[in-house]
Amino acid sequence: MPERRKLLLAGAGLAAAPLLAGMATGVRAQQAAAPVETGPFSVRAYGASSAASALEARQIQRRAVGPKDVLIDVLYSGICHSDIHTVRDEWRQTLPTRFPSVPGHEIVGRVTAVGSAVTKFKVGDIGGVGCMVDSCGTCENCLADREQNCLKGATFTYGSPDPALGGFTFGGYSERMVVAEHFVIRIPPGADLAATAPLLCAGVTTFSPMQHWRLEPGQRVGVIGLGGLGHMAVKLAVARRAEVTVFTTSPGKIADAQRLGAREAVLSSDAEAMKRLANRFDLLISTVPHAYPMQPFMDLLKLDATLVNVGALNDLEGPNGMALAFGRKSLAGSVIGGIAETQEVVDYCAARNIKADIELIRPDQINQAMDRVVSKDIRYRFVIDFTAERQG
Amino acid sequence: MPERRKLLLAGAGLAAAPLLAGMATGVRAQQAAAPVETGPFSVRAYGASSAASALEARQIQRRAVGPKDVLIDVLYSGICHSDIHTVRDEWRQTLPTRFPSVPGHEIVGRVTAVGSAVTKFKVGDIGGVGCMVDSCGTCENCLADREQNCLKGATFTYGSPDPALGGFTFGGYSERMVVAEHFVIRIPPGADLAATAPLLCAGVTTFSPMQHWRLEPGQRVGVIGLGGLGHMAVKLAVARRAEVTVFTTSPGKIADAQRLGAREAVLSSDAEAMKRLANRFDLLISTVPHAYPMQPFMDLLKLDATLVNVGALNDLEGPNGMALAFGRKSLAGSVIGGIAETQEVVDYCAARNIKADIELIRPDQINQAMDRVVSKDIRYRFVIDFTAERQG
Repeated sequence: MPERRKLLLAGAGLAAAPLLAGMATGVRAQQAAAPVETGPFSVRAYGASSAASALEARQIQRRAVGPKDVLIDVLYSGICHSDIHTVRDEWRQTLPTRFPSVPGHEIVGRVTAVGSAVTKFKVGDIGGVGCMVDSCGTCENCLADREQNCLKGATFTYGSPDPALGGFTFGGYSERMVVAEHFVIRIPPGADLAATAPLLCAGVTTFSPMQHWRLEPGQRVGVIGLGGLGHMAVKLAVARRAEVTVFTTSPGKIADAQRLGAREAVLSSDAEAMKRLANRFDLLISTVPHAYPMQPFMDLLKLDATLVNVGALNDLEGPNGMALAFGRKSLAGSVIGGIAETQEVVDYCAARNIKADIELIRPDQINQAMDRVVSKDIRYRFVIDFTAERQG
Repeated sequence: MPERRKLLLAGAGLAAAPLLAGMATGVRAQQAAAPVETGPFSVRAYGASSAASALEARQIQRRAVGPKDVLIDVLYSGICHSDIHTVRDEWRQTLPTRFPSVPGHEIVGRVTAVGSAVTKFKVGDIGGVGCMVDSCGTCENCLADREQNCLKGATFTYGSPDPALGGFTFGGYSERMVVAEHFVIRIPPGADLAATAPLLCAGVTTFSPMQHWRLEPGQRVGVIGLGGLGHMAVKLAVARRAEVTVFTTSPGKIADAQRLGAREAVLSSDAEAMKRLANRFDLLISTVPHAYPMQPFMDLLKLDATLVNVGALNDLEGPNGMALAFGRKSLAGSVIGGIAETQEVVDYCAARNIKADIELIRPDQINQAMDRVVSKDIRYRFVIDFTAERQG
């Protein structure tokens, strides 16, 4: 790769520890030393220059591999609807996109170098990167494994101010990344790497509310929207032995929902079904990536129960004060999960062979794939395969 | 009183127990027997014929005193903003008012007769009636002391279908009521009766969320809106030794809030203060009786914390999905409390000499008082005094 600078790690002199490392899995750090980057280096990435432009190949800078950093060759990168919202600047009211924008926060890759103080990974390990790459590490939320809620603001994988290089962070639609080891998830041996990538966002995003709101076996959970997040929510809730109902606007997804393990699948437009299901749910997880009238779903909650919105990040529609009050219902939001929780969902899924339903694409198919996500023509996650390109 | 039919209780023959009762406090049931009503009887009340008409004196029917019923001479009846919403049909979208409408659900009165199976009251006792007068008593919510959330629908004090007489229930803007004893609250001896009336709605409505969301000493609670509910919320939160901040749109209420025990009072329009208070509150209780942009207040919540709306019963404005998600915040509703909880707040306040700040009015001043409530010209609760009229 022409853009790859073959330089030594800046802090190399500090450490006698395993520092220089090899590409091959299982090779000890001292062997087959691969170059470790010292200064910012250039990598190929796929990003957009403006809200109106398609994503295209471009060069971006990555920071030097610091003592606690891991250098990752990206193998697989999922396409989350948030990536599309971002490159199209659809959250401009609350979170304007800074261009150029390189999205991607469902990343699985191979560790090709580690900094001098890294203990969690060795060269050749497989690591996952989700939505965050840094946080203050010292605030009460970080100390409570809630890095996503860091009081000083987590550094998200893309679009956050980049403390190392200035500008804004670039995500996983790129061939290589440098990430602090704390924010890299260990991918268990034997995992289906491509189908594991979506766990880093879609998986933890739907797993976390089930943990926080304590979804128990036998409880009734509704999953609103059957897309990338929704299909993971179904799989994870079924694994908990909850009774799952899927709400979808796509008649073609009814059978799919049942195949995924849902007890029932309902068209949201089916007024009879919505009426029959009133006051029945212990938890609702809304994965729909845009605002919609939420009150009809709030009506499905049991007393004291909660609808957790993990999808729509713009202004929500409704709810109705009277309906909320008379059922003491709650509308909550939740975003991804902490690093420990992300590790937990990855381990949980590996142990149970739970993986995303994916369709692999080449990097040159990203724009087409994004259009298909918007038109709901994907079951259920596109994953960009960087392995072929790297070999080519 | 000309409308008062002097009849014997229908079920009188069934009971050798204390059935016929006297007016005077402490008089045994067998003594000074007062008439107990058998059939529906007429009482004077104050109600509206339509959303556009003023309240005026009218005759309404009350049911016969059944075996488990208590007959109450109303002494005091608070004016809640809900009463105004109702007679003006301001909730028509979700809960259209059935006219004629006689509101009133903050009622304190004297027991003047008891049914044959009544054990909770004797003639002469003081009883309180809040927002409910019946529920199924057998569903899981009723059995859990959550009658306000009765799965078959509680019978509210006014405006609910009346199972006894047909039509719709009439509230406490009336001289006498017949209520099932379970729904009558014991008012402790020595209580300031007029200032206790507002506890039956405003008190329990603000007490209940503090119980459910477990407001602890030293925690920070914000009270949004300083009216009838808000001023009770402040008093109740101060009694729990929480640190109270009041948010008001009325500059004239800042000093009042501090007098009531708030640590701080903030004009909601004060952008600097709102920014300074971001992410600080363990609980927010919104008592504003109409929808308003809620997101600026959601921003004041700590991680995982809840804004409980007890005031606005129409469609709410906002919140923003991203802000909810990134702080894992909740927007909840709560309505009054169960009968046990209502008894609890009345006892709690009596033990601590907590009472509403009230202005007594005559029944012929109701319309004027309602206008003053709407223009926020009351500190903090009008209470209709029926004692003078009764004596007159």
